[in-house]
Amino acid sequence: MNPSDWFTEELPGADSAFSLKIKKKLHGEQSAFQFLEIYETEGFGNLMVIDGCTMVSTRDNFFYHEMISHPALFTHPEPKRVWIIGGGDCGTLKEVLKHSSIEQAIQIDIDERVTRLAEIYFPELCESNSDPRAELKFIDGIKWVKDAEPNSVDIIIVDSTDPVGPAEGLFSKAFYQDCFNCLTEHGMVVQQSESALLHLKLIGEMRDAMSSAGLGYLQTLFFPQCIYPSGWWSATIASKSSLANFRELDAANKPFDTRYYNADIHKAALAQPEFFKKAFSL
Amino acid sequence: MNPSDWFTEELPGADSAFSLKIKKKLHGEQSAFQFLEIYETEGFGNLMVIDGCTMVSTRDNFFYHEMISHPALFTHPEPKRVWIIGGGDCGTLKEVLKHSSIEQAIQIDIDERVTRLAEIYFPELCESNSDPRAELKFIDGIKWVKDAEPNSVDIIIVDSTDPVGPAEGLFSKAFYQDCFNCLTEHGMVVQQSESALLHLKLIGEMRDAMSSAGLGYLQTLFFPQCIYPSGWWSATIASKSSLANFRELDAANKPFDTRYYNADIHKAALAQPEFFKKAFSL
Repeated sequence: MNPSDWFTEELPGADSAFSLKIKKKLHGEQSAFQFLEIYETEGFGNLMVIDGCTMVSTRDNFFYHEMISHPALFTHPEPKRVWIIGGGDCGTLKEVLKHSSIEQAIQIDIDERVTRLAEIYFPELCESNSDPRAELKFIDGIKWVKDAEPNSVDIIIVDSTDPVGPAEGLFSKAFYQDCFNCLTEHGMVVQQSESALLHLKLIGEMRDAMSSAGLGYLQTLFFPQCIYPSGWWSATIASKSSLANFRELDAANKPFDTRYYNADIHKAALAQPEFFKKAFSL
Repeated sequence: MNPSDWFTEELPGADSAFSLKIKKKLHGEQSAFQFLEIYETEGFGNLMVIDGCTMVSTRDNFFYHEMISHPALFTHPEPKRVWIIGGGDCGTLKEVLKHSSIEQAIQIDIDERVTRLAEIYFPELCESNSDPRAELKFIDGIKWVKDAEPNSVDIIIVDSTDPVGPAEGLFSKAFYQDCFNCLTEHGMVVQQSESALLHLKLIGEMRDAMSSAGLGYLQTLFFPQCIYPSGWWSATIASKSSLANFRELDAANKPFDTRYYNADIHKAALAQPEFFKKAFSL
């Protein structure tokens, strides 16, 4: 293995590493917030890296983008207004806008450069950016939520980087309280929640913070994500009201294409592994 | 990344690589069949490597061993006789023997050295080797199945290495025909079937070979397996009769512990991703 031919992300906590073979480096810059790199890989299409962590590849981003959006959108009775905190690659925005009930989807990523690079290197993720229902803001998502009016949003999707650096505040009780305050009656937060194999403690702290902020109905979903640590990722939905009403018929008859998500996969993602149930007394 | 501190498996087809940081190399030998290595890792316990491919780690083997055994065993109406082809680390044997209906479980691995090393470096996987129902044979599993009497086994679990080298014949129509001939009425084969993200063509060829050998009822199950390519693995159950009768109540009330598997996870593993359904017209 000649290191110069590969991009490698080392995971210090787990003492493992994941590498993608690269054809060439397409771009590198220090933005106002983080270090951004784009590679052309041999087998995974283009790859965006933020502060040394793999963020999105052409080949496998569909798992993550579909699973952080459709389960929540098909659980809420009628989602009209969605905010995406982070999500600068625009892949989540594209999935959200596939739902015809959506009247407004606002993407709030602090770093405009992520989106500008996505437009160049992941144009397929940015296909819906000019949808009249879409709005892109490049401001602090934590402040946006804090300043928001009550009753102003149905679903807040936290499509963030890992809880270090700019995204740290997105995993806190204070942030979830602010979310609680601006969510509508059946409102919910969806948070990308790392790997249950590697980050169980973090997931527990996040679930506690959500509950204590009044978002007491929780669902953690599990799905593959090859380029993320352990290859097995999760998202957690937190709501002020019951999450039991999955609109299964709507999901089964969805009028749009997906590559991973379907009604069966939705229910499957909610199955809780034995060690996870024991860890959280589920 | 100092290469000498890491064990790295490169996956040429997918142009990705997975690495585990090592404390030290505990063992290395060329057996009569393959090159065997054992490492002590920083974060994953011990690691067995065969011909350069990660096989089993202390930390995450439970996903694979539970998912290659319990779904089939809780689908068969009353499994009494099980053969494990390969499986020399004995982890699958241990899971099979948790089922009280089992009268005989024979592990047939061509390479005795795999088991001898597992006894030293993965003793927890070998805990049931002295169970009176267990039998360990170190002979060619393909020949064993070919020479077997009709009606002599309920479940054949093919817990093999990748379909190159010694395990290549285990993915062939000829082998599945031999399985068909010695299986009982509700008999089934369970085959580890690689990654649906990386090896879809192989899975298709295997499913075709199974069907054309008379094992026409198929279920492909999906589960995480961090140290295997893409982190997302599969097993395929192939039977001569319907697989619809999951003994869900028995699984929900199983009198033994597992770490990943439970009745909900069983059903979840059977959910077919959208791209998989399309690939095989499911």
